[in-house]
Amino acid sequence: MSFSLVVHGGAGTMKPGTMTPEMEASHHRGLRVVLRAGYAVLAAGGSALDAVTAAVMALEDDPQFNAGRGAVFTSGGRQEMDAAVMDGASHAAGAVAGIIGPRNPVMAARAVMESSEHVLLMGEGALAFLREQNLAWEEPGYFFTESRWKALQTELDRRRLSAEDTRDAAAKHGTVGAAARDANGHVAAATSTGGMTGKAPGRVGDCPVFGAGTWADDATCAISCTGHGEFFIRWGAAHEISARMRLGGQSLEQAAEAVMAELGERGGNGGLIAVDAAGNVSMPFNSAGMYRGRIGPDGVPWTGIYREALRGE
Amino acid sequence: MSFSLVVHGGAGTMKPGTMTPEMEASHHRGLRVVLRAGYAVLAAGGSALDAVTAAVMALEDDPQFNAGRGAVFTSGGRQEMDAAVMDGASHAAGAVAGIIGPRNPVMAARAVMESSEHVLLMGEGALAFLREQNLAWEEPGYFFTESRWKALQTELDRRRLSAEDTRDAAAKHGTVGAAARDANGHVAAATSTGGMTGKAPGRVGDCPVFGAGTWADDATCAISCTGHGEFFIRWGAAHEISARMRLGGQSLEQAAEAVMAELGERGGNGGLIAVDAAGNVSMPFNSAGMYRGRIGPDGVPWTGIYREALRGE
Repeated sequence: MSFSLVVHGGAGTMKPGTMTPEMEASHHRGLRVVLRAGYAVLAAGGSALDAVTAAVMALEDDPQFNAGRGAVFTSGGRQEMDAAVMDGASHAAGAVAGIIGPRNPVMAARAVMESSEHVLLMGEGALAFLREQNLAWEEPGYFFTESRWKALQTELDRRRLSAEDTRDAAAKHGTVGAAARDANGHVAAATSTGGMTGKAPGRVGDCPVFGAGTWADDATCAISCTGHGEFFIRWGAAHEISARMRLGGQSLEQAAEAVMAELGERGGNGGLIAVDAAGNVSMPFNSAGMYRGRIGPDGVPWTGIYREALRGE
Repeated sequence: MSFSLVVHGGAGTMKPGTMTPEMEASHHRGLRVVLRAGYAVLAAGGSALDAVTAAVMALEDDPQFNAGRGAVFTSGGRQEMDAAVMDGASHAAGAVAGIIGPRNPVMAARAVMESSEHVLLMGEGALAFLREQNLAWEEPGYFFTESRWKALQTELDRRRLSAEDTRDAAAKHGTVGAAARDANGHVAAATSTGGMTGKAPGRVGDCPVFGAGTWADDATCAISCTGHGEFFIRWGAAHEISARMRLGGQSLEQAAEAVMAELGERGGNGGLIAVDAAGNVSMPFNSAGMYRGRIGPDGVPWTGIYREALRGE
């Protein structure tokens, strides 16, 4: 009886020295809270599906990460959130795109999966469906954070001045996600995002595109991606890793690292987390850093930010 | 120098005897117009990308097919169209979801691919971008057809009476699409749909989900799917076929027929058209019928509706 959980809070240009020690410590702390939320489910014999949901809810609740509370703003000054969840046992899947309202977008994605006959609902139509579900809702003020609002103003100023966009592609596309393997050998994945600061309203990234940013299959693995989503879509990143394991006989690590490296060669910046059906984990990224962590049956959370060994608490 | 084009106008319960001879003839005629539109591009040395765009435009312009003019209505009495296009040479891709306005949704998808930094735009945000592009627009009246409106009223009446939904899953999810291989060996695919009659507003099917309903890769094939899109998403149908060819050494026909058969075993109704990099075509479906056709260098259009040999003109 073994289980395994991996999480990410986005990839980008987090080189050592670009964050204060306090900020670093705060992100490690946040990731540990997230890992323990998922661990509590798995240690109690819960499902991978419930564990990734709990972990992503914790990531959404922490304004340090770009999903739920703390989501970034579109160029129109709004917040538009996407979320997705997939169960590797049944291939059941649910996703929402371009919504604001439900406190936890990943719970909205689960409602689509469990209570609709559809897989993907977007915008106002999605909200109309979600209002009939038993979800916690919040006013726009709940999701607002001063730092994300300032980031939008900085970006809009840059555009007015036609200055060069020096933002890192992966950092612009922050996402959170989780992948888990439970004690029964089932896997699941979930991803949630506020998108990119100053994005065009209506832009949908790889998060709700199953096979690109989110995938789960008990026969292979569960995956959640973060980064420049357009590249993950155009190369079917998550499904490709699963296919290389199933059809090409590769290990999770071989497939995940190769696909991430190839995306990098093509200009796609970012990373991913994955767990296979045996509980092995892989967390490759081609950006400077990726907020990430893993936890297993011993309950010790291991977290990392830069290209460094994970640190246990 | 060989080229090849395949098209579909949706799959469903079109058993012999369910359509009048006039309706049958009219659909064959419509498919021939579509095939000749794509053939004109390919015979002039044009690209697969331009050929699938031309073919899908012709399908959208023909109100017999559920895309563009003749799109079905949501339960809210509106029309919401999705379209996608993908170039196998570069993996460039563009899609729109939940729009009404551009005369040809496939041209809107191409504008996203060619003039935005994004791959998928939805709803009002998509329309705001598209208004800046050089596209032909139409008033809602252009897209309206009496038969689709009546179909919605019938469906709403059924729901009021809580009567059984006897509609075929594939027929409910009509789609059009094209896949082509040009004389230079490049492939491309495009898909367009009005969705399903009485669908929940905001529902997005497999059409704009790359890897599910639409995929193109010069290394393997180009594919456009039609049917119960949720199943195609949950099993990554189009990318799976490509992966089985590339990683599993299967032929297009082997991979396409096996994936369609497996979808059927899981309850997924529909079909797909595909062309490989050598110009071979495959058109499997697990529903009673699928509007479909192919054309090659001799310029003779071959079309079919039921489980039958295609007929040349």
